[in-house]
Amino acid sequence: MSKISRMSLTLILFAVPALILALGQAPAKVPFSPYVGADGAVSVPSDFRASWVHLGTWIVTSQAAAGPEKSGTSHANGIHGVYTRAESLKAYKETGAWPDGTVLVLEVRPVQWDDLPTGHIMYAGDATEISVMIKDRANRFKNHPGWGDGWGWALFKPSNPRANMSTDYKKDCLSCHEVARDSDFVFVQGYPAVK
Amino acid sequence: MSKISRMSLTLILFAVPALILALGQAPAKVPFSPYVGADGAVSVPSDFRASWVHLGTWIVTSQAAAGPEKSGTSHANGIHGVYTRAESLKAYKETGAWPDGTVLVLEVRPVQWDDLPTGHIMYAGDATEISVMIKDRANRFKNHPGWGDGWGWALFKPSNPRANMSTDYKKDCLSCHEVARDSDFVFVQGYPAVK
Repeated sequence: MSKISRMSLTLILFAVPALILALGQAPAKVPFSPYVGADGAVSVPSDFRASWVHLGTWIVTSQAAAGPEKSGTSHANGIHGVYTRAESLKAYKETGAWPDGTVLVLEVRPVQWDDLPTGHIMYAGDATEISVMIKDRANRFKNHPGWGDGWGWALFKPSNPRANMSTDYKKDCLSCHEVARDSDFVFVQGYPAVK
Repeated sequence: MSKISRMSLTLILFAVPALILALGQAPAKVPFSPYVGADGAVSVPSDFRASWVHLGTWIVTSQAAAGPEKSGTSHANGIHGVYTRAESLKAYKETGAWPDGTVLVLEVRPVQWDDLPTGHIMYAGDATEISVMIKDRANRFKNHPGWGDGWGWALFKPSNPRANMSTDYKKDCLSCHEVARDSDFVFVQGYPAVK
């Protein structure tokens, strides 16, 4: 057997099994988002605080005087921080629209107080709630109660970032976000990163 | 001339001028930070909102009752957002110390109010002040009034990100940051990204 024939044989012996392995592991198709399952289930990105950009902060200090049914403590009371990926923010600033697959993560943290030389201070305690919105321009999950109006919507306890507590986005999410419909349900007027 | 000799000659003809060009353009030495001049002058990074991570938010709603000289409105009143580069945050979380060259940017924005279905809301208006801290483990600018205690300190109006308004960090910066000396002058207890 010549030297070249021996090299070819060696190549075939290694390459063919490697190719079979690779094909067996290849996904059937490219998924829409790493945070959306084939059934439309949404999960919380794990690394948003450490690597995403911050759109802005909202502080909800009291219940709105919107009628007697609004009395009591809102689950939204606290300091809200909103995060997204840098490339989504860049695209929004360039085009005025959130690109398909944009992920917005909103954390709610209770207000902590302190008196420092700077003044009477509010800062954020441990997160109590995380909301996720995922931009869906293709209306991918038509009969899913967590998807509609151009977004996927989900609500989590930080301790369980895969268990969406929302059963109906129209009830659980639009109750607050409806008033921001003209800006695609996002409160951009309060986001320094967008201005 | 053999084929190999011709290849060597070609390589030399291209490589030698390229090397000369590269050496001619090389900087005399690597600068400490892109935001610090040779004289210790600090400037505001231009891209922190669009590409850096956000450490956390502090809200200063009133003056501390620290004595009669503290009455009146503090220039620090407002919503404070603090940003750094992702790699600096990663290093801090791994080691418990800010690496040399770490840049912290703090924006102060006045509180805006709104009444929304979510509740009575505070959000951030246009920035009125930007502070910059740059970690300096080598005590590089010994007699500079903006450098000391392991940091470079500077204070800007957003309209002029190169004109440091602080003339003495001990007076202009430590008046608030002294109480955080045990955590290297950084109020890490309020930073969700650090927790």
